[in-house]
Amino acid sequence: MADAEAQLATIIDGKAIAQSIQRELKEEIEQITAAYGRVPGLAVVIVGERKDSQTYVRMKRKACAEVGIKSINVDLPENVSQAELLDTVLELNADPTVDGILVQLPLPKHVHEEMILNAISIEKDVDGFHPLNIGKLSMKGREPLFVPCTPKGCTELLVRSGITIAKKRAVVVGRSNIVGMPVAMLLIKLDATVTIVHSHTPNPESIVKEADIVIAAAGQAQLIKADWIKPGAVVIDVGTNPVSDSSKKLGYKIVGDVHFEEARKVAGWITPVPGGVGPMTIAMLLRNTVDSAKRTLSKSSA
Amino acid sequence: MADAEAQLATIIDGKAIAQSIQRELKEEIEQITAAYGRVPGLAVVIVGERKDSQTYVRMKRKACAEVGIKSINVDLPENVSQAELLDTVLELNADPTVDGILVQLPLPKHVHEEMILNAISIEKDVDGFHPLNIGKLSMKGREPLFVPCTPKGCTELLVRSGITIAKKRAVVVGRSNIVGMPVAMLLIKLDATVTIVHSHTPNPESIVKEADIVIAAAGQAQLIKADWIKPGAVVIDVGTNPVSDSSKKLGYKIVGDVHFEEARKVAGWITPVPGGVGPMTIAMLLRNTVDSAKRTLSKSSA
Repeated sequence: MADAEAQLATIIDGKAIAQSIQRELKEEIEQITAAYGRVPGLAVVIVGERKDSQTYVRMKRKACAEVGIKSINVDLPENVSQAELLDTVLELNADPTVDGILVQLPLPKHVHEEMILNAISIEKDVDGFHPLNIGKLSMKGREPLFVPCTPKGCTELLVRSGITIAKKRAVVVGRSNIVGMPVAMLLIKLDATVTIVHSHTPNPESIVKEADIVIAAAGQAQLIKADWIKPGAVVIDVGTNPVSDSSKKLGYKIVGDVHFEEARKVAGWITPVPGGVGPMTIAMLLRNTVDSAKRTLSKSSA
Repeated sequence: MADAEAQLATIIDGKAIAQSIQRELKEEIEQITAAYGRVPGLAVVIVGERKDSQTYVRMKRKACAEVGIKSINVDLPENVSQAELLDTVLELNADPTVDGILVQLPLPKHVHEEMILNAISIEKDVDGFHPLNIGKLSMKGREPLFVPCTPKGCTELLVRSGITIAKKRAVVVGRSNIVGMPVAMLLIKLDATVTIVHSHTPNPESIVKEADIVIAAAGQAQLIKADWIKPGAVVIDVGTNPVSDSSKKLGYKIVGDVHFEEARKVAGWITPVPGGVGPMTIAMLLRNTVDSAKRTLSKSSA
């Protein structure tokens, strides 16, 4: 019994790591405020009343408060016009107390999401989703102004857990714009050998099994089983999939893209869901906002 | 003897495929000229007297002439100032008869290459190297204005040879901004499962050996040997490496990143060097220039 337990993967505690990042940020923000006389500001824009979006936005605003970032809250009704939403973004672009602008996705169907996101000033694109940022992320010798939060959260979890990335084989499961592709680029920049598998990959399990580092970002509940994982591998689970669970008050629970209970018997390191990548995404959003404020303030005082 | 020969890889004749693309372009250009009263124009800018750059530029200008693209030739001395070169680019940006601007690289050391390239209007960036184009290339649901020429040449060779890309395992050797990274993104967009190996990859041969499609873009003469290649695989060789050869008038010959004579005994398909990817790069430059002209002319007539 003791032996079997000794073989379980080390849990990478994203919540604890995010908290220690937030403590660091809090100190930095105090220094910034002392030096420049203003706190960093993050505008968090939400349209409509989607429950999941509201939860995410509430968590982001709460995290801002905890570290001392001013959260500029913009709550717009579901039926806001595209022109009104665009005006909101342009006003926030022009506001010197706003260092970052986050528009919670998805937007209602009548709004052209790409147009709205492209309207965010690249200097305030703390989500890092602007194609110019993504392009620079993939290029040697170029540095994006902001690295997207979830990908950066994944690599930060590795670095802060003392896991070497260079020369490792990494497999990214999923090729989305917000996680799969940018995390692959980031891992390549950090000298990993990277494979991207996706819905058109035959036998993904045999490829994932070659990985020293697995980034699971497919958006499919418990897709990745124990026998997909190389013994001792590091497993970072980005998935947040609701599955029904009658024992829960809400009737569902959130599970990752990895079958956690199975996988932890094979992996060397694993992130839980919740409490793994999720808190890191928010910590990286705060990090990007603080970096943006430092960039702006150091320029204006130069 | 006959049996042994029958087992050699099919040669993918890049020169012939490029010629057939150029014939198609020539017809398109005649139609464009008939419809809009002007021919597409490509500005080819060269700084200094590097022999290799002069050869590339001469080939590009000659290809323009063959298909009926007006080549605007700008030859600047090695000691041109950065300001003069920038002015040249800005003038070409403003010139409505110029559909594409190509600045031959490398530039002399006293010139800030990134600054000059970023100054090229994104509407005329027929090389496709602008980070905004690269970003869109990597993003689902976004289309770059131009796909970089060599990566596009590689996938075009596959498509025109009847080779399916979707669901195949592709390994890209090299992660440069101009070939490795963008060709990897392009292959992912085309539904291949892609691995990028590079100078920090331990045992690259074992990874290359898993590939149905190998894109060799490491810039190392004959790095990839026969025993790196899975029997029957498709091998696209992007390398152009000079190696000394006393039997040649110039004292050297050009070889690829693949050991061609060995590899053709194992591969199913292979591109030669020269005569493989090289002519396709030029054909795709012409293709991008014609696409740019069509975009501009259809807008101005709308």
